[in-house]
Amino acid sequence: MTELPIDPDLIVRENAALADALDEDYEALGRQLSRRGIDIEAVTAKIAGFGVALPSWGVGTGGTRFARFPGPGEPRDVFDKLSDCAVVQQLGRATPTVSLHFPWDKVPDMAALKAHGDALGLGFDAVNSNTFQDSPGQALSYKYGSLSHTDPAVRAQAVAHNIECIELGKVLGSTALSIWIGDGSNFPGQSNLSKAFERYLESASQIYAALPDDWRVFVEHKMYEPAFYSTVIQDWGSSLIAAESLGEKAFCLVDLGHHAPNVNIEMIVSRLLHRKKLGGFHFNDSKYGDDDLDAGSVDPFRLFLVFNELVEAELNDDTFRPAHMLDQSHNVTDPIESLIGSAVEVTRAYAQALIVDRGALAEAQARNDAFLAAQTLKRGFVTDVGPILAAARRRNGGAIDPVAVYRASGYRPRKANERPAVSGGGGGIV
Amino acid sequence: MTELPIDPDLIVRENAALADALDEDYEALGRQLSRRGIDIEAVTAKIAGFGVALPSWGVGTGGTRFARFPGPGEPRDVFDKLSDCAVVQQLGRATPTVSLHFPWDKVPDMAALKAHGDALGLGFDAVNSNTFQDSPGQALSYKYGSLSHTDPAVRAQAVAHNIECIELGKVLGSTALSIWIGDGSNFPGQSNLSKAFERYLESASQIYAALPDDWRVFVEHKMYEPAFYSTVIQDWGSSLIAAESLGEKAFCLVDLGHHAPNVNIEMIVSRLLHRKKLGGFHFNDSKYGDDDLDAGSVDPFRLFLVFNELVEAELNDDTFRPAHMLDQSHNVTDPIESLIGSAVEVTRAYAQALIVDRGALAEAQARNDAFLAAQTLKRGFVTDVGPILAAARRRNGGAIDPVAVYRASGYRPRKANERPAVSGGGGGIV
Amino acid sequence: MTELPIDPDLIVRENAALADALDEDYEALGRQLSRRGIDIEAVTAKIAGFGVALPSWGVGTGGTRFARFPGPGEPRDVFDKLSDCAVVQQLGRATPTVSLHFPWDKVPDMAALKAHGDALGLGFDAVNSNTFQDSPGQALSYKYGSLSHTDPAVRAQAVAHNIECIELGKVLGSTALSIWIGDGSNFPGQSNLSKAFERYLESASQIYAALPDDWRVFVEHKMYEPAFYSTVIQDWGSSLIAAESLGEKAFCLVDLGHHAPNVNIEMIVSRLLHRKKLGGFHFNDSKYGDDDLDAGSVDPFRLFLVFNELVEAELNDDTFRPAHMLDQSHNVTDPIESLIGSAVEVTRAYAQALIVDRGALAEAQARNDAFLAAQTLKRGFVTDVGPILAAARRRNGGAIDPVAVYRASGYRPRKANERPAVSGGGGGIV
Amino acid sequence: MTELPIDPDLIVRENAALADALDEDYEALGRQLSRRGIDIEAVTAKIAGFGVALPSWGVGTGGTRFARFPGPGEPRDVFDKLSDCAVVQQLGRATPTVSLHFPWDKVPDMAALKAHGDALGLGFDAVNSNTFQDSPGQALSYKYGSLSHTDPAVRAQAVAHNIECIELGKVLGSTALSIWIGDGSNFPGQSNLSKAFERYLESASQIYAALPDDWRVFVEHKMYEPAFYSTVIQDWGSSLIAAESLGEKAFCLVDLGHHAPNVNIEMIVSRLLHRKKLGGFHFNDSKYGDDDLDAGSVDPFRLFLVFNELVEAELNDDTFRPAHMLDQSHNVTDPIESLIGSAVEVTRAYAQALIVDRGALAEAQARNDAFLAAQTLKRGFVTDVGPILAAARRRNGGAIDPVAVYRASGYRPRKANERPAVSGGGGGIV
Repeated sequence: MTELPIDPDLIVRENAALADALDEDYEALGRQLSRRGIDIEAVTAKIAGFGVALPSWGVGTGGTRFARFPGPGEPRDVFDKLSDCAVVQQLGRATPTVSLHFPWDKVPDMAALKAHGDALGLGFDAVNSNTFQDSPGQALSYKYGSLSHTDPAVRAQAVAHNIECIELGKVLGSTALSIWIGDGSNFPGQSNLSKAFERYLESASQIYAALPDDWRVFVEHKMYEPAFYSTVIQDWGSSLIAAESLGEKAFCLVDLGHHAPNVNIEMIVSRLLHRKKLGGFHFNDSKYGDDDLDAGSVDPFRLFLVFNELVEAELNDDTFRPAHMLDQSHNVTDPIESLIGSAVEVTRAYAQALIVDRGALAEAQARNDAFLAAQTLKRGFVTDVGPILAAARRRNGGAIDPVAVYRASGYRPRKANERPAVSGGGGGIV
Repeated sequence: MTELPIDPDLIVRENAALADALDEDYEALGRQLSRRGIDIEAVTAKIAGFGVALPSWGVGTGGTRFARFPGPGEPRDVFDKLSDCAVVQQLGRATPTVSLHFPWDKVPDMAALKAHGDALGLGFDAVNSNTFQDSPGQALSYKYGSLSHTDPAVRAQAVAHNIECIELGKVLGSTALSIWIGDGSNFPGQSNLSKAFERYLESASQIYAALPDDWRVFVEHKMYEPAFYSTVIQDWGSSLIAAESLGEKAFCLVDLGHHAPNVNIEMIVSRLLHRKKLGGFHFNDSKYGDDDLDAGSVDPFRLFLVFNELVEAELNDDTFRPAHMLDQSHNVTDPIESLIGSAVEVTRAYAQALIVDRGALAEAQARNDAFLAAQTLKRGFVTDVGPILAAARRRNGGAIDPVAVYRASGYRPRKANERPAVSGGGGGIV
Repeated sequence: MTELPIDPDLIVRENAALADALDEDYEALGRQLSRRGIDIEAVTAKIAGFGVALPSWGVGTGGTRFARFPGPGEPRDVFDKLSDCAVVQQLGRATPTVSLHFPWDKVPDMAALKAHGDALGLGFDAVNSNTFQDSPGQALSYKYGSLSHTDPAVRAQAVAHNIECIELGKVLGSTALSIWIGDGSNFPGQSNLSKAFERYLESASQIYAALPDDWRVFVEHKMYEPAFYSTVIQDWGSSLIAAESLGEKAFCLVDLGHHAPNVNIEMIVSRLLHRKKLGGFHFNDSKYGDDDLDAGSVDPFRLFLVFNELVEAELNDDTFRPAHMLDQSHNVTDPIESLIGSAVEVTRAYAQALIVDRGALAEAQARNDAFLAAQTLKRGFVTDVGPILAAARRRNGGAIDPVAVYRASGYRPRKANERPAVSGGGGGIV
Repeated sequence: MTELPIDPDLIVRENAALADALDEDYEALGRQLSRRGIDIEAVTAKIAGFGVALPSWGVGTGGTRFARFPGPGEPRDVFDKLSDCAVVQQLGRATPTVSLHFPWDKVPDMAALKAHGDALGLGFDAVNSNTFQDSPGQALSYKYGSLSHTDPAVRAQAVAHNIECIELGKVLGSTALSIWIGDGSNFPGQSNLSKAFERYLESASQIYAALPDDWRVFVEHKMYEPAFYSTVIQDWGSSLIAAESLGEKAFCLVDLGHHAPNVNIEMIVSRLLHRKKLGGFHFNDSKYGDDDLDAGSVDPFRLFLVFNELVEAELNDDTFRPAHMLDQSHNVTDPIESLIGSAVEVTRAYAQALIVDRGALAEAQARNDAFLAAQTLKRGFVTDVGPILAAARRRNGGAIDPVAVYRASGYRPRKANERPAVSGGGGGIV
């Protein structure tokens, strides 16, 4: 039986106070959608079945290279992290799985961790390796790279770590490994761009060889940071070359903040779908770089346009099985609130994309009626689908207003008492 | 016998006045390079053998969507354009071929055009198709696309035009077709991103099928403009997919101004080289977008870093046979001067890359001596290779100071008398 | 009496068919807003009173430097342009004025033009000067600048043109002059950056001296294009220096597409408001540069954030009197449709900003409750205010679905018969 | 008497081995410059007199939010930092002062620190306050801002810290305070953009009031990071408003990595010079954001263009007294090497700008001879001024090849023995 971190009665009580308003809004929206030829119930059912993974590291307060300002009740270990994730899922009901990061989340008894997840009703999504930091006791440093390092011994260490991640993931029931590396260079000339890529491909192929039959491996590109001149897997082009050279179990991950300014990200989604190589998304939002802000907080229309492509893929490709995750850094908010809110925004974009009149859209596109086509697509976006999202949460046992219930629950102050305060201080620069 | 547009005696006289200074600088540089283990003569020989194609349209004054301000003596037709190109080549000796653009440069008697080029000592490089404009008398409009248009009849028209370009090119002795299209959309929803790409691939494959055995086809990507939301071949990733799907005669062209801000272009060169799909470069410079400024005028170090990759490719891949072209718009300068100057800058970057101590660089890279590696590469860049460039020009019969000779020759005022003045006026916006 | 270009009965009939649905949606939204403490009627009244000027040049099909693809029924002259603007206003009822551009819109009898506007029920907003093109018969060229040209004679000509624009505007009842220049340079070194700015300030002060007491002058900055290395008024900082140096009748105009990538434009609005120097907005949308796309089509949330600042200014500053205009280039749509649609999007953003709970927002900001503050602001954005916009149009005599009525009216095919077809062709590059 | 960290005999010996080659190159360059009308000795004298401050924090290995990888011999405290700075100055002779950062560099006995600097021959440049981190024992947190915080008590604490910095600086002989804050917001709505700016101005005016008569205060803007949606002093416009509102002792600092992509930074220099408000530069280089890479390593031409403006200012404004500093983060190199190398690159750009033929440049600009003007400016850049830089170092007692001497000296291994190893680990994200 699932151990729920928030008192279910609280949810029931809070929902009761909001039920009439929600019902009224839902019915009004239903009538409007009905006029537009859309069955609101079908959309609500789709939303109720949608899930995006939580990042275990996302429930802690993040920071920048300048500073980190922890909040009260920071999770002490992966067990605390799972508990916090369980709050997000209990209230929001759109985040049924957690994605772990090793060695951060490695514990001596991984089976106990699996049992803890089971007890909380949480599954385990893709596992993540970490070769962008040096861990205590690590033999060789990743200062100058990992999978693409010039030294074969460092590459071997990094490959072994990834293979260990697969082993840890097997215990948890994961079926995917996500690889993001920071390898690159800070100065023109520091690294031979071609050879670094070739070394990466060779290392990645060794990891791929260790992949169980039912696993997938996700390659994630990023334009810059921590390397500030070149990055080995710098864009979707390099990611695609890697995934295609590895084999049919290799796919590309897209993160909204990992691109050059102005790049049309939904087009990248479309191209990876064309090659059947889109593995999934790391959702967040960004204004400048890899800002890792809450999903939908800066450019919600872009998020909608991504989902427009994903919905197209759902309709056109039976084999499409995306692995979505929230990948955010919560520097100034309570991480639990940001994760709840971000899951809402991701589902909002999905719902908006679902109610687009695709027949009318395709017809306007075929006629090159640019104005009408654009309006048809945008009509989905300007519709307030909030009642659908709330109704779906309620059906699944969640809260109509999940953050309000979270605040009312006193979870954070309770944890602040149980968990010792963490001092802040500098980031990487000091 | 070649008809030279500039009096060779003028070159001889002007060179004589500069010869002593050049000799002194060349010898001093030779001694310095000798200390660094480099044979200046070998470098000069390489430079003397280097060539970059001229764009026929580049000898006319360009413009923006706001206005065009023609200069005196604008070329009236492709014969005038070839004459102007011959000036660039006679004085600079780094631009032995011309790249034509159809239908702009189509004439009833293409063989006569070929003979005109022969007489001027100019060869013909890749031919360029144009389906981004509507030509007088054209049956169907490209307003909503060409090779990727939703209407098969428009696609067929665009394919036929490209095949006609191949036929025209055969007469000239060209062996390559460059395809750049403006297809895309201005609004989210206007175009189905996936289907537009599929239509493009199908059309391109029809062109590919018409390619003679000894020809190559170059696909050129561009992030935006004239389409301002999506572009069908928007980046090197899409370009690579296209080239790989077409076949072994298809390659990717890179233009310095066709990328998102901050993108590491030399890394794209490296990745295309990895896939053996780099067709060549369209040289120019840019600060903001596809500014089409003179090569090396805004970021000369970037140009050097591109050549650093090209020199690596020369050394490592016997089959590497790049097709380089200047692709610029000369809005405020005399186009002949800008083309002469740009060819100098391109060869400057090549010379700087040639004198890099690649053994020391590889060793520093292998040791992750980031500082020394960066310094080793940059040492090539900070060296003033001007004397090498001038000496190579002189050896080939060109001018030590080509723009000075051009100005002294009175070519432009002479042409301003022969060719009628062109009135300016608005660009696309009025 | 106003000559309406569209049969009012058609509007009545079309509205009748949509009235029940609108009433139902409006009432449902009213109840929801009422629960949130907002009086929908007050918002609708504000929206009904809002106006944004139409650009006379916006009713013609625009183009890029590559090509222009005209549509049917292009306006032949400024009288036709006013007629087209009258359609936009009659149906959309948010665009009561037109902004003219000289010399494009100059006619021998300006009073007749004024009378034509009066007859159509259109007022005249700010007039725009044009010194970025050479007009037929113009004595001196603007190829190398206008108000900042090195030659005092060119500067004097440009100043005189601006003063003439004021005189023309007086006849029309305009009370503002907008100055945007293309002055700048394409190459480092081409222009002395400091001296060009000083020359600009001196020229602008001469124009300012000719300004009637009740007029304002608007200075518009732009990062680049048509100049591709430096632009004299390149950003809001230079614009502010200019406006402050000119005097109290000088203000800064902001155009959404005139900034560097990633720039936070609403913050610029806030800073100009701080200095009491925000003159108004040129609305459009952009993904890459000065794309001049339909307002709200690419980043509607950004448009909302701008209006969030404008609404704050309305509340805090009684003297704030912004001059807003649509400034777009319609390359692939019917310009009348795009202008109708853009006015809708601008009012949508205004309505969304009006319904933000500013008390709750201020309180959350004061407590640094970042999550709640962000949610409070965004709640305005996700609300579907469409019914308010439609109701406001209907009250003012416009159409519930203005583009549908426009299409039903047959206005465009009628004009296509009356007005001769325009051939397309190249933009600035050929 | 100065305590030199490197054995002067080593410098003498190493210089001896390189003297003949340097003399030969210097003489050849001298002859070439003489032909161009330039006296090499005058340039060398200018270079020998140039200085740029070292950042005390720059001698430690930096990091990113992902990780920090320390090197051997990391400085333990500010005394160690000064020793390392003394190495940079002894060998490179272009960095006679150090800029301290408080509270990082605060010691109980500041006078002893001053004496240590004196003994090493190092002066003290501007002092820097730090309100972007929470220090141990600090009463109130800067998590939500400092000088612009909504809570007056936090603002008062931040003001008091800045005033303390002035007091500390007085002991050192500093005459300037640099203020950079991280204040801003991560989400639209989190902060009231206008009010935050007003609070900043009020706090800054309190600091300004505490400024001694002979001191200056420098305001430094930055587009983003650590705040990822809005930053209070986000660009030079806001910085200028602040400096002008504070008074005549307030100036703006420019950092090359603090701008939006594609921004023309030399134009900002020019505009601040126009307002007599340029305080100085924080030199480094960047490709993507605030990358803090070694000066001149990514875009050396941009650095030259900045110096082109600075040299113009020197010539035109007797009161111009810039305060330059290197502000870099050395993540993959030995910080001492990077600082030596960066000082070389900064002086290289200065020397290149000094040898520009300003008469010819002004004449070509006046005639709008864009090609010749650009060539005239660039001629300074392509000249290899390395011999001038080396000769100036030698004259001042430094090393012809300073990094080679540093490596030969064994300073780093010696310090690695004296100073305990530092473990790496995560940056802000964990």
